[in-house]
Amino acid sequence: MEDVHFCTSYFDPLSLAHKALHVNLSDVAAMGATPLFVLGGISIPMLHQEYAKEFLHNFADMCENTGIKLIGGDITASRDRIFISVTIIGVARTKAIKYRCTAKPTNIICVVGELGYAHLGLIACEKSLSEFGLYKKPFLRPTAKTKEGIWLAEQDAVTCMMDISDGLLVDLRKLCKASDAKGVIDLELLNPSIAFREDCAILGLDCMDVMLTGGEDYGLLCAIDVEKLHCFAKDFAKIFGYPMKRIGYITNGSGICFVNNGLWKNKKLKPFSHFGESTEF
Amino acid sequence: MEDVHFCTSYFDPLSLAHKALHVNLSDVAAMGATPLFVLGGISIPMLHQEYAKEFLHNFADMCENTGIKLIGGDITASRDRIFISVTIIGVARTKAIKYRCTAKPTNIICVVGELGYAHLGLIACEKSLSEFGLYKKPFLRPTAKTKEGIWLAEQDAVTCMMDISDGLLVDLRKLCKASDAKGVIDLELLNPSIAFREDCAILGLDCMDVMLTGGEDYGLLCAIDVEKLHCFAKDFAKIFGYPMKRIGYITNGSGICFVNNGLWKNKKLKPFSHFGESTEF
Repeated sequence: MEDVHFCTSYFDPLSLAHKALHVNLSDVAAMGATPLFVLGGISIPMLHQEYAKEFLHNFADMCENTGIKLIGGDITASRDRIFISVTIIGVARTKAIKYRCTAKPTNIICVVGELGYAHLGLIACEKSLSEFGLYKKPFLRPTAKTKEGIWLAEQDAVTCMMDISDGLLVDLRKLCKASDAKGVIDLELLNPSIAFREDCAILGLDCMDVMLTGGEDYGLLCAIDVEKLHCFAKDFAKIFGYPMKRIGYITNGSGICFVNNGLWKNKKLKPFSHFGESTEF
Repeated sequence: MEDVHFCTSYFDPLSLAHKALHVNLSDVAAMGATPLFVLGGISIPMLHQEYAKEFLHNFADMCENTGIKLIGGDITASRDRIFISVTIIGVARTKAIKYRCTAKPTNIICVVGELGYAHLGLIACEKSLSEFGLYKKPFLRPTAKTKEGIWLAEQDAVTCMMDISDGLLVDLRKLCKASDAKGVIDLELLNPSIAFREDCAILGLDCMDVMLTGGEDYGLLCAIDVEKLHCFAKDFAKIFGYPMKRIGYITNGSGICFVNNGLWKNKKLKPFSHFGESTEF
């Protein structure tokens, strides 16, 4: 939805096409499925017809290049804002499909992909800052973890998987609620890079808060059998050329809590909510 | 899209749920397929959350009652208008699937369902007229011709099929363009009822124009082998309890033309267009 999820002032039609496709591919990746078909619905206001034409052209090209068949959709008029709705159909081996309701106590919580980069990109775009290119790309053109998702789905060690679209905290809370378990995040393990810390500071943001609540990263969130973690994490790094990030563990209970230097820690955060409800942790 | 395809002032949430489902079922019916799965995406502005909740509740109930499985979708915030996007997945016997590109010269053009009723319903709703209930229902709660579509798809006599969503003229023109043929509409065959004529007159409308250009009827448009038409039409009427309407024929050429009392006739009409382009016939 224009002016909620994107603004045409900083989203060129190519970036928007990329994002519209990949945020949906991310959901397919999260179940370990291979995307096959896509349907795209778009409503276009009069004033944006040229922009929308370019968007559609790029979207169709991108589907073809990704090997996904664009099999249908709908183009209609809208009053004053662009609306885009994408449906992707994928296939997976029934036994390999990963759900969000199957995490077990003692499982290790791991994250695939960077945390908080997209949020810095959003801030940089909204403030029209010419720097911070490193973060703008993950925000404007996130890349779904399709290959990682398919590989992770085939690993028995992965007990539970979902994508991170609304921010780590919100999505981990969903995973824990669905699994009837509690998530413990070890703040030391978040371990932001020095550059990321500095960039957050320049923008007046707390880097831990950004990593915990920044949305739209489109990474993957997994729960992993603690006994199989070691060789499994090594394999992942070898195959994909970057490490998974261990950030905590699952235990009995409900909700999310934090530890820091081995001590429980309270944190007041305002994570993303589609409808602006405020939640404290 | 709110304020383009519907207004909440005259669409109660139940009617809107009905329409959102059936306008999509109509596309599935047009190919002769049996609907199996549905995905619903909705963007909701803050002010409309109660309305949207009721819509979603009704939509889910309706899917269940229709025997279609609601398998997914997305709920997000919007700025100031409701947007709904529905995807339905159906199955059909490969050989029975009907397309819009296969009409042949000499084929008879037939219509299933009333023409122009939904348009009168729209006018009555927009003008807040308490009468015209007969037309409001087809506008507010159109019923997809699912059973008819499945039956017609199994008939070899039917060479071509699509649904009528943008009005007879616009949709017949699409069918003819796709089939590289010309459509001839016999105005006498439109044969509006006396009541319909009178109601059009009360609303200051030309009844023939309404039948030709009024949108959102969600009937079916077929091309039928002339030699098989007779017994086929009898079977249809017997099974469904109402007749198909013969309205013209396919010939060589392109575009649409009209005959009246055996004479060619020019007509100036402004059919529906999603983006307001004006077309004359």
